[in-house]
Amino acid sequence: MNNSVKSTSEPTLTDKFQRGNVLASGCPSRGVLQDVTSRWGVLVLFALLRGTHRFSELRKSITGVSEKMLSQTLHALEADGFVLRTAHPVIPPHVDYSLTESGREVAKRVEELVNWIEVNINPILNARDKYTQRYR
Amino acid sequence: MNNSVKSTSEPTLTDKFQRGNVLASGCPSRGVLQDVTSRWGVLVLFALLRGTHRFSELRKSITGVSEKMLSQTLHALEADGFVLRTAHPVIPPHVDYSLTESGREVAKRVEELVNWIEVNINPILNARDKYTQRYR
Repeated sequence: MNNSVKSTSEPTLTDKFQRGNVLASGCPSRGVLQDVTSRWGVLVLFALLRGTHRFSELRKSITGVSEKMLSQTLHALEADGFVLRTAHPVIPPHVDYSLTESGREVAKRVEELVNWIEVNINPILNARDKYTQRYR
Repeated sequence: MNNSVKSTSEPTLTDKFQRGNVLASGCPSRGVLQDVTSRWGVLVLFALLRGTHRFSELRKSITGVSEKMLSQTLHALEADGFVLRTAHPVIPPHVDYSLTESGREVAKRVEELVNWIEVNINPILNARDKYTQRYR
């Protein structure tokens, strides 16, 4: 991250950050990575890749998430521009959540990671067993 | 996740889980995903892709991580078989950390995600600004 660049006019974000650096604690890319990889953020992005969901549908898809945590997670992802919240003007109110274009891009990377873990769960659990036997 | 399979002998992990399912709260793949995407886990995997590090080198690479959190994170990743801890029998003791083969596989997926966020940090921050202006 380089934010020491000076120009004659007020610098735009593009001037300030050529590229993020998540290893630097002050770089905003680290905060975005945290939103994306938060306990529930990663699961929300993964679930929304399958299509638009209502809040209650998301809660059903992602077992174990509380209403409060799901709401906070959706807010953070909406603020980063990854999730689109659409309130339909009907009675009773109907709100749904979908991925934006950039949300789809980031969610595809999350999916690659999730798929790898799901497919490789057996060797990972075997490694865990060996570790436990060695150190217990 | 299907763990209802019964066979005549004690079922192996391979029998029990055909594939993980991170959306199911009881599936162990969700715990592995949490280790990989924990606040510091994701940064440790990313940093170790660049090569073997000593503990102190990792702390220097990943600014802001405490000794305690780095230690806990390395333990979790070691237990999952992603990180190899090597203690060299020299004086003073010298311990270093590297990725295993499966650690490299999972870290490559993490890298794809991190790279996308680092490259796209400007549009993401612009989206955040718009969101803040709309809702403040």
